[in-house]
Amino acid sequence: MSDSRCEGCNSKGTCDSTTDKCGMPQKGQRKGIGMIVAVGSGKGGVGKSSVSALLAVGLARRGQKVGILDGDITGPSIPAMLGVKGLPTGSPLGIVPPKSPTLGISVMSINLLLEDATKPVVWRGPVISNTIKQFYEEVLWDGLDTLIVDLPPGTADAPLTVMQSLPLDGFVVVTSPQDLVGMVVEKAMHMAQMLNVPILGLVENMAYALCPHCGQRIQLFGPSRIEELSKKWWVPSFASLPIDPVLSNLSDRGLLEEYHNQSVLDDLVEGFLGRKP
Amino acid sequence: MSDSRCEGCNSKGTCDSTTDKCGMPQKGQRKGIGMIVAVGSGKGGVGKSSVSALLAVGLARRGQKVGILDGDITGPSIPAMLGVKGLPTGSPLGIVPPKSPTLGISVMSINLLLEDATKPVVWRGPVISNTIKQFYEEVLWDGLDTLIVDLPPGTADAPLTVMQSLPLDGFVVVTSPQDLVGMVVEKAMHMAQMLNVPILGLVENMAYALCPHCGQRIQLFGPSRIEELSKKWWVPSFASLPIDPVLSNLSDRGLLEEYHNQSVLDDLVEGFLGRKP
Repeated sequence: MSDSRCEGCNSKGTCDSTTDKCGMPQKGQRKGIGMIVAVGSGKGGVGKSSVSALLAVGLARRGQKVGILDGDITGPSIPAMLGVKGLPTGSPLGIVPPKSPTLGISVMSINLLLEDATKPVVWRGPVISNTIKQFYEEVLWDGLDTLIVDLPPGTADAPLTVMQSLPLDGFVVVTSPQDLVGMVVEKAMHMAQMLNVPILGLVENMAYALCPHCGQRIQLFGPSRIEELSKKWWVPSFASLPIDPVLSNLSDRGLLEEYHNQSVLDDLVEGFLGRKP
Repeated sequence: MSDSRCEGCNSKGTCDSTTDKCGMPQKGQRKGIGMIVAVGSGKGGVGKSSVSALLAVGLARRGQKVGILDGDITGPSIPAMLGVKGLPTGSPLGIVPPKSPTLGISVMSINLLLEDATKPVVWRGPVISNTIKQFYEEVLWDGLDTLIVDLPPGTADAPLTVMQSLPLDGFVVVTSPQDLVGMVVEKAMHMAQMLNVPILGLVENMAYALCPHCGQRIQLFGPSRIEELSKKWWVPSFASLPIDPVLSNLSDRGLLEEYHNQSVLDDLVEGFLGRKP
């Protein structure tokens, strides 16, 4: 037995069970979405959400219809970065996600449902997993060119549910130069491999900073390791991004759509589109 | 009914149930440990593990017997930072944790049990929670002056289990200057409050960097917000730490015990000890 729901199953093409009885989690429907990608890292704080949002901005500026599913249920930052404030609304067909003010990027995030953004969601794994599934199944993502799923750190419930249950086309890996970060990032890459999710490419964040006083380039977390990781895993490196105080400031103010370091956006988008199947 | 196991229960002193039947998770025994603290943030990548390790180094240099329970099961970095490589060993009384080479800091971490540190632990919440409980219950932490529990990001299974099941004396919160980070950090502070874990103080990491070329101070993630957070929550600020390439380099090489920026260590340790009950 083998149909589209068998994608990601180690017994694909060789088992004699039926998909509704084999016990493997079934992937959701594609909903006519052009490309569904997860952006993750394994490690926290390397800039997964910034890369997700920048990729969305870059693609939207090129005319794509883009959405972001914020899979970070306990530490969501996408709505704040993009200045998305509206409540998701109900319709007979499903939940309509609010959009970012300038480029119309659709966003679904737990923080859109909380009255106070600093209030925690103290939930155990199964509830988190179900929420992510609902954010995919019940939201009207239909017809997007690209849906970006922003993953939380770790290799536990949330990333596992996304990789097992969503019909992902691939995984974009965000890393930073520290060896220790690389170690944890490789855990997530191994996880994607285990679950047969193709790794599309690497983005190195916080690769360097420019001193605002003397203009020199500073490697705060050591020399870049992206080429090494790229060779080891045979995956392309999309971009090497600086620590940019302008980006932090725009993110804090919900104005990430106004980011205009076009070379950064171009690197990211070209790398991503170059691998588009 | 009220005994030591009722600590953290909202019905303490007013209920008429017995601790073994009330359904609340029971806190572990103290094992004669002087002080048990969790170091966390809610947010990833702000330096929880660095702060945990630096606090351990600072306390150990002052003669304390210190241990670190690495509660980050899917992204553990404590053994690599401190150069701890030995396997935990069994004894009739429990598991003996390996120690750091110079200061003898006891460490228990999932990465000590993996053959390849880059291999992931793809586990759902309940297994992660049980592992953390075992790391506390079955490891011989007995007689330590301070046990530091290094928490993963988020407010889900791992931090929840630590706050519910371990007899914590308090919570040290690590943050960084970005507003967006502050929002997520406050989620963890609200969680600690909900679970009656006292917040001992704040540590601001990545507060600034020194340009190695011109020596000027750079605020890469914007101006410090620690005083604001400290006033809002009525908790002291222990220290404001720079992004320090020397620290990244020592961490990557497993030599964090050799870190000798004594003013950073002193700020951290004095802040911490000043609040010791």
